[in-house]
Amino acid sequence: MDSPHINPFLKRTKSTVHISALYSDLKDGKISALSKAITLVESTAVNDSAFAKGILSKALPHSGKSFRLGITGVPGVGKSTFIESLGKQLIASGKKVAVLAIDPSSSITRGSILGDKTRMEELVKSDQAFIRPSPAGTTLGGVARKTREAIILCEAAGFDFIIIETVGVGQSETAVHSMTDFFLLLKLAGAGDDLQGIKRGIMEMADLIVINKADGENRTAAKHAKREFQNALHLMPQKNQYWSTKVLTASGLNNEGIEEVSEKLKEFIAITIENGNFKKRRDKQELFWLHQTIEDRLKSEFYNQTNIEERIKDLESQVLQKRITAFEAAELLLGH
Amino acid sequence: MDSPHINPFLKRTKSTVHISALYSDLKDGKISALSKAITLVESTAVNDSAFAKGILSKALPHSGKSFRLGITGVPGVGKSTFIESLGKQLIASGKKVAVLAIDPSSSITRGSILGDKTRMEELVKSDQAFIRPSPAGTTLGGVARKTREAIILCEAAGFDFIIIETVGVGQSETAVHSMTDFFLLLKLAGAGDDLQGIKRGIMEMADLIVINKADGENRTAAKHAKREFQNALHLMPQKNQYWSTKVLTASGLNNEGIEEVSEKLKEFIAITIENGNFKKRRDKQELFWLHQTIEDRLKSEFYNQTNIEERIKDLESQVLQKRITAFEAAELLLGH
Repeated sequence: MDSPHINPFLKRTKSTVHISALYSDLKDGKISALSKAITLVESTAVNDSAFAKGILSKALPHSGKSFRLGITGVPGVGKSTFIESLGKQLIASGKKVAVLAIDPSSSITRGSILGDKTRMEELVKSDQAFIRPSPAGTTLGGVARKTREAIILCEAAGFDFIIIETVGVGQSETAVHSMTDFFLLLKLAGAGDDLQGIKRGIMEMADLIVINKADGENRTAAKHAKREFQNALHLMPQKNQYWSTKVLTASGLNNEGIEEVSEKLKEFIAITIENGNFKKRRDKQELFWLHQTIEDRLKSEFYNQTNIEERIKDLESQVLQKRITAFEAAELLLGH
Repeated sequence: MDSPHINPFLKRTKSTVHISALYSDLKDGKISALSKAITLVESTAVNDSAFAKGILSKALPHSGKSFRLGITGVPGVGKSTFIESLGKQLIASGKKVAVLAIDPSSSITRGSILGDKTRMEELVKSDQAFIRPSPAGTTLGGVARKTREAIILCEAAGFDFIIIETVGVGQSETAVHSMTDFFLLLKLAGAGDDLQGIKRGIMEMADLIVINKADGENRTAAKHAKREFQNALHLMPQKNQYWSTKVLTASGLNNEGIEEVSEKLKEFIAITIENGNFKKRRDKQELFWLHQTIEDRLKSEFYNQTNIEERIKDLESQVLQKRITAFEAAELLLGH
């Protein structure tokens, strides 16, 4: 027989076999299959696109059965040590834990999260854990899409907890908040970035604030910070009737306060599944991403038109010379 | 001759005469002509659209020569008394003052700003003043466009100061900030809404914060609030190298501190014209509105397509049933 490149029948058979075999391994929880599937989904190669779609459509009906936990905090707050500690605790209670990291700053800071990964030494070794750094991406929307697709694959592979980790840069926290069931904000005592957190609405998004590194000399300061956050939260409108943002102290390093954190997660899950808000939040997120994708695409299609850049430049300069208004220029560009 | 409705020549002549006469009166500073022109621009009637375009294109080259001052503050902060006091002061120094109000809440609160207008009793009487409440509008983008067009007309009519007033609701402050040279935030001592202001980025937008009602028993509290705001501002990044946000106290009621406010405006104008940032900020705003209009239109055109609502509902339900991903649904809706 000829090579698959010139025999379309053979090629189709081959790819079908590939997808079925890969999906079967993924469904069995094989880490190597999950890794490969995520790589396919992340790939920008045209040939991989059909494979990616195939594996996703197989995984989709089996997705949704995990608890999706967003964790954010500035660099230095001890995210990886905290996640390692929480992850080990969840695994000890019989759960499978996946960690996906979104790091929009990686091209600038040369991969701070990637560096961190090597520090989750024990979690990396466990066969009940899966750790995956953020895919490279040029837009946050693109990275968000890939991460959401990776969540689907992890869920189909039987992971119970999917931790989506991000650093506090730009809009990445909003993106993570929009794809998780619970949003955990890690803070340090006396770090002085509280005003920024309030300003950018991060505190408002948090379901739980954990003052990390509450160990040794830091213990008293952490308790003090806990009270301060509680006071600040009282000044803000409560998130909703069934859950007010909680504040805890913990030490990822000493495994202290971690059980209290997972107790809060359990409490939240019990309440929101009972009152239906667990599903409501997920449904809302699905529709958010549907419409967000539409808006992103409309913009990118408009701005990627042939010669549009020249026309924009020309009309921009007419606007600045007061020959037409900005609104007229927009209408001309839209072809009205 | 026949009626203008069946004689296109007569109609064209008539409308040309109309626009020329109206514009000539407007250029002479006749308030009635300015009023009429703004009404034309605000009109949604199809017949008025050509008139509006005509008068705007005549006014546009003569626009831009005013100082555009945005003023915001919650209801009860004393906006109208403050504006009356500042307006009188500016008129006394030989300037012409227009006040345009954007009130996105007017349909809910039954026109709080409109009510205020009747309280600017002295300003209303002056022939050097022009006061105009916000046009009715269904979208903030639409109201913003009409307000920006009203600014052009006021400037062509020779007004030196255009005050754009808004209440702190939703995105209206951001819109006003995006169309003014200077953004003044009115506050009350001890009003306890500071956290909200920080959160929504309003404090960050302000070029000047004025603690109003600094009179009688309130004087000490106002001084205290001034210090608190100054401290809070120190924690935030400075607006830019040439201007840090200032804090003053004033009493609109007693005309106290108003001269200090207009001194700050003068200082700002001198600095920003000297260093070129006055023009830079305006140019940036023009381009902002150009692209904002494009994005608004792309969205509204998409969502106004025939039958799109049904298709969206159908695909939304497929997404919620996990039959396709949100991204696939978006692609289908966009026709890929």
